[in-house]
Amino acid sequence: MGKLFKYPDGSTRDIEEKKQKKSKNLTKANLGSDFEDEINESNEYYLNKNIAVIHKKPTPVQIVKVDYPARNKAKIVEAYYKTPSTTDYNGIYKEKYIDFEAKSCRELNFSFERIYEHQIKHLDSIDKLGGIAFLIIEFSSIDEVYILPSKLLIEKYNESLNGGRKSIPYDFIKDNGVFVKRGFNPRLSYLEAVDKYYFKKK
Amino acid sequence: MGKLFKYPDGSTRDIEEKKQKKSKNLTKANLGSDFEDEINESNEYYLNKNIAVIHKKPTPVQIVKVDYPARNKAKIVEAYYKTPSTTDYNGIYKEKYIDFEAKSCRELNFSFERIYEHQIKHLDSIDKLGGIAFLIIEFSSIDEVYILPSKLLIEKYNESLNGGRKSIPYDFIKDNGVFVKRGFNPRLSYLEAVDKYYFKKK
Repeated sequence: MGKLFKYPDGSTRDIEEKKQKKSKNLTKANLGSDFEDEINESNEYYLNKNIAVIHKKPTPVQIVKVDYPARNKAKIVEAYYKTPSTTDYNGIYKEKYIDFEAKSCRELNFSFERIYEHQIKHLDSIDKLGGIAFLIIEFSSIDEVYILPSKLLIEKYNESLNGGRKSIPYDFIKDNGVFVKRGFNPRLSYLEAVDKYYFKKK
Repeated sequence: MGKLFKYPDGSTRDIEEKKQKKSKNLTKANLGSDFEDEINESNEYYLNKNIAVIHKKPTPVQIVKVDYPARNKAKIVEAYYKTPSTTDYNGIYKEKYIDFEAKSCRELNFSFERIYEHQIKHLDSIDKLGGIAFLIIEFSSIDEVYILPSKLLIEKYNESLNGGRKSIPYDFIKDNGVFVKRGFNPRLSYLEAVDKYYFKKK
């Protein structure tokens, strides 16, 4: 009990989230989760201000066996984590569909091992249908957060398939992505970064 | 094993979905799930045709305990169903954010007991931010499907809070909602119904 479940991508989820929040225990294991907390709290702020409705999708789980203890609620006793078919977050902002995946990186690069190909394709489809699609990346060692629009992600991904780097270096993200300010309320002004990239050109 | 988990709303989910699909076992217990299958398959059709990207959200589960059997993947051994914070489906269509809840009704009315208040409020927020928000309702006894736009849902819900009916009668939905045609591909032409309501007026 209380053990953190570690995802293949190094992030942790769901289990004893509240405990984590209270202890603010900044071990390596739950950095991913802390970044998620920041996004979730920012989304609450945006929701309460009627700025945007953006939610994290539940962690997909394949349920195999459920018990029905007398007088108690159904208890799932066998289940497995499933590969997510889409991304972490989606919702509506400025009448647009918005969709993104969040990643916290310890190294100063974003490796394509951290994302599934079908998630990249999903972001590409959103982009092509006129939605806002991006990656929000935290570089935890230097405490910086950026948005990387899906067009740039896909450009780099295609390069990697054709013999290029299997990761996107920090410098590329810094120079081509949009910096996300950290603050008090919202903790991450990531919609400001979205504005800069998606709503200024028109 | 193999027992269907029954939700408070009468629908069934996740467990042995594939088996259900194959057997097409039309018992009362899995009617909700068959309706979901129809929507999911329609979404696949829309996705493959680059018409829309709409996905069902995973069933929210509170994970309490995870085991790590040697050499095997993590096994969730204690978890509980959580109240969904939003709706079943969302995505992008014609550059708009689209969001809906699906319900299969055996009776010829839609009872407000079938939906959480916070889900109604969620649909209302989407509507106010310029998104497309509705309920898609199957009346299983007469094999008819309708879209009920959130504006109408909320109107009726507010009436119910002020002493009005605690359900929306079939006749109201038939006269004010939009009929959804069933067919082969897609099985449910529900975006055609969306077009009629949301894209014709302008």
